[in-house]
Amino acid sequence: MATLTCTASDLAPLLTTATTALNATALSESLCGRFNTISTKFADTTYAVDNTYLLFSAYLVFAMQLGFAMLCAGSVRAKNTMNIMLTNVLDAAAGAPSYYLFGFAFAFGAPSNAFIGRHFFGLRDFPSVSGGDYSFFLYQWAFAIAAAGITSGSIAERTQFVAYLIYSSFLTGFVYPVVSHWFWSADGWASPTRSDNLLFGSGSIDFAGSGVVHMVGGVAGLWGAVIEGPRIGRFDRTGRSVALRGHSASLVVLGTFLLWFGWYGFNPGSFLTILKSYGDGGTYYGQWSAIGRTAVTTTLAGCTAALTTLFSKRLLVGHWNVLDVCNGLLGGFAAITSGCSVVEPWAAIVCGFVAAWVLIGCNKVAEKLKYDDPLEAAQLHGGCGAWGLIFTGLFATEKYVNEVYSGRSGRPYGLFMGGGGRLLAAQIVQILVVAGWVSATMGPLFYGLHKLKLLRISREDETQGMDMTRHGGFAYVYHDEDDPSIKPEFMMRRVEPVNDASPA
Amino acid sequence: MATLTCTASDLAPLLTTATTALNATALSESLCGRFNTISTKFADTTYAVDNTYLLFSAYLVFAMQLGFAMLCAGSVRAKNTMNIMLTNVLDAAAGAPSYYLFGFAFAFGAPSNAFIGRHFFGLRDFPSVSGGDYSFFLYQWAFAIAAAGITSGSIAERTQFVAYLIYSSFLTGFVYPVVSHWFWSADGWASPTRSDNLLFGSGSIDFAGSGVVHMVGGVAGLWGAVIEGPRIGRFDRTGRSVALRGHSASLVVLGTFLLWFGWYGFNPGSFLTILKSYGDGGTYYGQWSAIGRTAVTTTLAGCTAALTTLFSKRLLVGHWNVLDVCNGLLGGFAAITSGCSVVEPWAAIVCGFVAAWVLIGCNKVAEKLKYDDPLEAAQLHGGCGAWGLIFTGLFATEKYVNEVYSGRSGRPYGLFMGGGGRLLAAQIVQILVVAGWVSATMGPLFYGLHKLKLLRISREDETQGMDMTRHGGFAYVYHDEDDPSIKPEFMMRRVEPVNDASPA
Amino acid sequence: MATLTCTASDLAPLLTTATTALNATALSESLCGRFNTISTKFADTTYAVDNTYLLFSAYLVFAMQLGFAMLCAGSVRAKNTMNIMLTNVLDAAAGAPSYYLFGFAFAFGAPSNAFIGRHFFGLRDFPSVSGGDYSFFLYQWAFAIAAAGITSGSIAERTQFVAYLIYSSFLTGFVYPVVSHWFWSADGWASPTRSDNLLFGSGSIDFAGSGVVHMVGGVAGLWGAVIEGPRIGRFDRTGRSVALRGHSASLVVLGTFLLWFGWYGFNPGSFLTILKSYGDGGTYYGQWSAIGRTAVTTTLAGCTAALTTLFSKRLLVGHWNVLDVCNGLLGGFAAITSGCSVVEPWAAIVCGFVAAWVLIGCNKVAEKLKYDDPLEAAQLHGGCGAWGLIFTGLFATEKYVNEVYSGRSGRPYGLFMGGGGRLLAAQIVQILVVAGWVSATMGPLFYGLHKLKLLRISREDETQGMDMTRHGGFAYVYHDEDDPSIKPEFMMRRVEPVNDASPA
Repeated sequence: MATLTCTASDLAPLLTTATTALNATALSESLCGRFNTISTKFADTTYAVDNTYLLFSAYLVFAMQLGFAMLCAGSVRAKNTMNIMLTNVLDAAAGAPSYYLFGFAFAFGAPSNAFIGRHFFGLRDFPSVSGGDYSFFLYQWAFAIAAAGITSGSIAERTQFVAYLIYSSFLTGFVYPVVSHWFWSADGWASPTRSDNLLFGSGSIDFAGSGVVHMVGGVAGLWGAVIEGPRIGRFDRTGRSVALRGHSASLVVLGTFLLWFGWYGFNPGSFLTILKSYGDGGTYYGQWSAIGRTAVTTTLAGCTAALTTLFSKRLLVGHWNVLDVCNGLLGGFAAITSGCSVVEPWAAIVCGFVAAWVLIGCNKVAEKLKYDDPLEAAQLHGGCGAWGLIFTGLFATEKYVNEVYSGRSGRPYGLFMGGGGRLLAAQIVQILVVAGWVSATMGPLFYGLHKLKLLRISREDETQGMDMTRHGGFAYVYHDEDDPSIKPEFMMRRVEPVNDASPA
Repeated sequence: MATLTCTASDLAPLLTTATTALNATALSESLCGRFNTISTKFADTTYAVDNTYLLFSAYLVFAMQLGFAMLCAGSVRAKNTMNIMLTNVLDAAAGAPSYYLFGFAFAFGAPSNAFIGRHFFGLRDFPSVSGGDYSFFLYQWAFAIAAAGITSGSIAERTQFVAYLIYSSFLTGFVYPVVSHWFWSADGWASPTRSDNLLFGSGSIDFAGSGVVHMVGGVAGLWGAVIEGPRIGRFDRTGRSVALRGHSASLVVLGTFLLWFGWYGFNPGSFLTILKSYGDGGTYYGQWSAIGRTAVTTTLAGCTAALTTLFSKRLLVGHWNVLDVCNGLLGGFAAITSGCSVVEPWAAIVCGFVAAWVLIGCNKVAEKLKYDDPLEAAQLHGGCGAWGLIFTGLFATEKYVNEVYSGRSGRPYGLFMGGGGRLLAAQIVQILVVAGWVSATMGPLFYGLHKLKLLRISREDETQGMDMTRHGGFAYVYHDEDDPSIKPEFMMRRVEPVNDASPA
Repeated sequence: MATLTCTASDLAPLLTTATTALNATALSESLCGRFNTISTKFADTTYAVDNTYLLFSAYLVFAMQLGFAMLCAGSVRAKNTMNIMLTNVLDAAAGAPSYYLFGFAFAFGAPSNAFIGRHFFGLRDFPSVSGGDYSFFLYQWAFAIAAAGITSGSIAERTQFVAYLIYSSFLTGFVYPVVSHWFWSADGWASPTRSDNLLFGSGSIDFAGSGVVHMVGGVAGLWGAVIEGPRIGRFDRTGRSVALRGHSASLVVLGTFLLWFGWYGFNPGSFLTILKSYGDGGTYYGQWSAIGRTAVTTTLAGCTAALTTLFSKRLLVGHWNVLDVCNGLLGGFAAITSGCSVVEPWAAIVCGFVAAWVLIGCNKVAEKLKYDDPLEAAQLHGGCGAWGLIFTGLFATEKYVNEVYSGRSGRPYGLFMGGGGRLLAAQIVQILVVAGWVSATMGPLFYGLHKLKLLRISREDETQGMDMTRHGGFAYVYHDEDDPSIKPEFMMRRVEPVNDASPA
């Protein structure tokens, strides 16, 4: 790189006889060398800033896996804690090699066709100038493992561990990457960033994945839970719903807060870069503002859903329930995830308010249909995720859509904002296609496992708890008897079963 | 933007006949276009870097809410766990819409008068070049919800949930924003950043809120706890203090560490920007150094307070107590929060040492006065927070005060550092005003709730625990009996010793 | 700083009569002033970006302390939870003042000799242009406290608290800083960054501390655990191994995930800076890519080790064990920590695969030798850490070694990659020297404490648990009896009411 700094004595001689061509060349080279150095340094700075932003966002998204683990652990009965936590650890652990070997290639291998990627297997020829850097891979891996985590909640407490290993690999390694290719890669058939032939002239706007992540995980969980049926005791002989309470509300709240924390990587992080000016630049308003706004819309949607749930459950059920509030909060987050970057903060409040009622409604329907989902995962991620896609089609603003998805004028935007129905149509197509694709792939898989007797555990295992029978022991030992001098009556107690519709 | 890069052939023609005015203009435009582009790019870079810094700091501050939730949960008895966790979730959830609608406007709406802000309601006309960006809103929201969290600790285990909803909204939506306006906004009457008429020529220096956040929360909690009185059983018939132990030391330690983690967003993050040179710039020393130093002073103060507490409690009580050490640590953090950016690391050690004794002293006084505060919140955040303000008045160094609060020469600084008593006077005024304002607003509120019988729960509820009576059940179910086939002696118990080499 | 922006009318007059010397000088000054300003601004930007990166990395590394606390707490029996958590809090709390006063000076005080540093005591004359900034101190402190945390796991459940205070201070304040000086400071005798006389022309490559941190902690723990012997009941009368299960698998998983989260600060953060181009700069590939790659290798190694452990334990023991998987995962991380920045992602998979078997093998040996280590810390951090150093000597690639340790051509690299045996020799020297140094310092210390009867607790204390006898009570109180109206059979037991002023 040419030297950037100089003193007057460096340049003055070049100017004193500035009418000759020779010095003009020397001066020009001197100046241009400096300008080119500056340009290079700006490029380097941009790479460093954007990678810093993306890496720490990826770490936050990874922290959601811890959130899922704690949420799931607290929401199941103590006798299945080891089982569910192992599945959460494995989502991350098994997801890394499989996403490295082929998942990432299916999703973002470029150039590719509209259906599936076919480069970057084992990160070959990666990173590249167009394909992204390692930080992008890490970020996408953290997303991929979230989908499988959602599904594991739906089928908790009654699924064979080997079935878990099979569906999880299939979901993370193939089903999910294909969906993310369709809606997020530069070649995907419904992607809003493809160069031409956009779906309805728009492409779906699923910014951080209400559909790509949450609906995928939720619909997969729905099929698993439907096929294996409810847990023993979840509905009594007369068909009434019996809440099988999770064993630790503290873990549920811990997990919920960690998911909230991680969602600041999930939604604002999906911009991937932060050092990008809007328009000519140089003003306080740029991509950094859009990122901040995304954090704000995310916060407002989740919080509004939590408050709505608090008061509606107080009216409907009669008590103030922190577990319901936690689920309502997460439902608001799942819903705003699609449109978080392209709506106004006030619209996020609408999004969260409706999301809370969507979740309540879905839970009512699930109860009627005797559908048992220990984490309410299909209702929460599937139902609120679908609502989020519609919400974006209604409330996306013209200005934000054109800023966030730049480089193409006259994009369709939200119906209620005067942008016509084309974006909404694309969103509805996404809902149908995601539901269809996941049903067509995961449904047969779960059904096959069921037929092969690999899906559901035995009645004995379920009654006794998988931790004792399959995972080497109970998760908690608050008292040990290794030494005979300690008296045996030291116990831990239980509470009365509660008859209500809200299983923790 | 003009092109930045060039080659000699671009500029040389402009110079070969450089004596004519025409080419001089063309050359000038070419050069200036490039310089202006550079200037724009630096502005964009600065926005991106500063927003990255502020956003991740805001996420860390948000993580403190999780820390509060776990600390509070662990510090109360198991029967009130759901209750206290719900209040912590709601601090964040209810705080978001109310801070969005009016809290932020009261605090930082600009331009305004010295007492209260009056712009940016519902983030209208926000962001703006002078008012800050969304990241600033998010950061301030995360601060606002911390204050209410402190107060909830003081009145834990005996307060009606509806009272909680009322005082929390009032505190987060009005009482706290007004205080933050006074001391932190550009217009506040005691702000060190107002353009003229500084209080004692100085303004108070409460960098990250020993007074604005911690004293506000602590004093509010004091009034609540005084008005409703101690928990049943907290003092026995002879008036002796009886420790009502929290139910989980693990949660207390988890919460404490999370608060420590989040404090790195709270204190160093309060600089708001990191890309700012001191002096002419270009040296290794700049705002980034001051931020690092702030992280170091914060660490040293908390750690010193923890060690001091460890040894003094060992001498006073006779055992090594991790719970006391945790509270001592937090007391040190609450104290250094005011002066963290303007004192030397060695002074932070002094700050922490004294803070530990302030907390021990306040606890002694509380015991004497039969004041019951389950989290020691009034003592810790109120007492150590007040000490922190005084400490800043004594130990703030001239160099750091002028760097951190730049643009005005000859600022007063710490009394012990030779800076006279004016800063100390401003700090004492802050203590008095904060205590007075919070007492004048929250005292009558709590008293009114008390008179309306909305404050304290019934004796039955308190004995049985609010979780069973108000929140839908006990937080923990370590053993379930939903299925009658399970043998009842299957307890929260131990398993057969397993002969293998891997002890968990 | 000179003004950067300009308009044509600023420069044109300087050019219209450009043949005179006077205007040439003025023009030159004008241009150079701008270029120098640009240069200064780039320097400032670089400092801000790098400090942002390093500070948040330091916060992540700090979060590992929370991870250790939860992992340790969950891995011991409930009766020793308070004890182990106190040691974890104190690692951080006592480490801060001691590292501030002398540890950092021993490690990184510059200029110094090859053995130990001797500047920056109490951060005197710090920060400086060559010695680093406060962020560097904070980052190194977070590393220092990790080593002591490892050791505390090995000697858990049977060590006097006073012994803990003594060895911990000695390890964090002297033993560890000296090792980090040797391998990481610019003057260390085996450092790969010293200016000349590199060990075997290479120096050891222990990028983030498989040896410097993990082996140090593990070997220290080995000596402590060997000298005090196994816990009561760990091996039965016939000498068979009896698993003393930890009390909470949830805490173990929580701690493991937090360590994973923090490892993204530990390994990628060890680059210290991110805004650094490789080669001439201006391309997408730079230090930010190497950092992302480091995060990827770290992830892959840990995940592969976890999977390997899952299946091998299933074969060897017969169940799917989440606790074993967690330890396997951490073993993979400890191993990749040395070479994470200089190996290809596929090699990280090899690293993790072998690490899992190293851990299994070490545990077999430990069982044979009746060595009791409640956290498997010596096996995991010592064994896998040593493997990690060897792995680097085998798999480090030429390209990455020269990029990460730049400024010297022809560096030796991995034996299997065609780089000869010199790097491997340096790695083996490191293993021997670290093992020797820690044995020579910590061995006598533990032996002396043992002889002075300060090391191991009494048989009564061990049977009853240290929490009751030394730390003020049991960690958990799931039911309280403070009010006589509650029936006494409500269990999860209680402790004696303590008369003091500090309710947990």
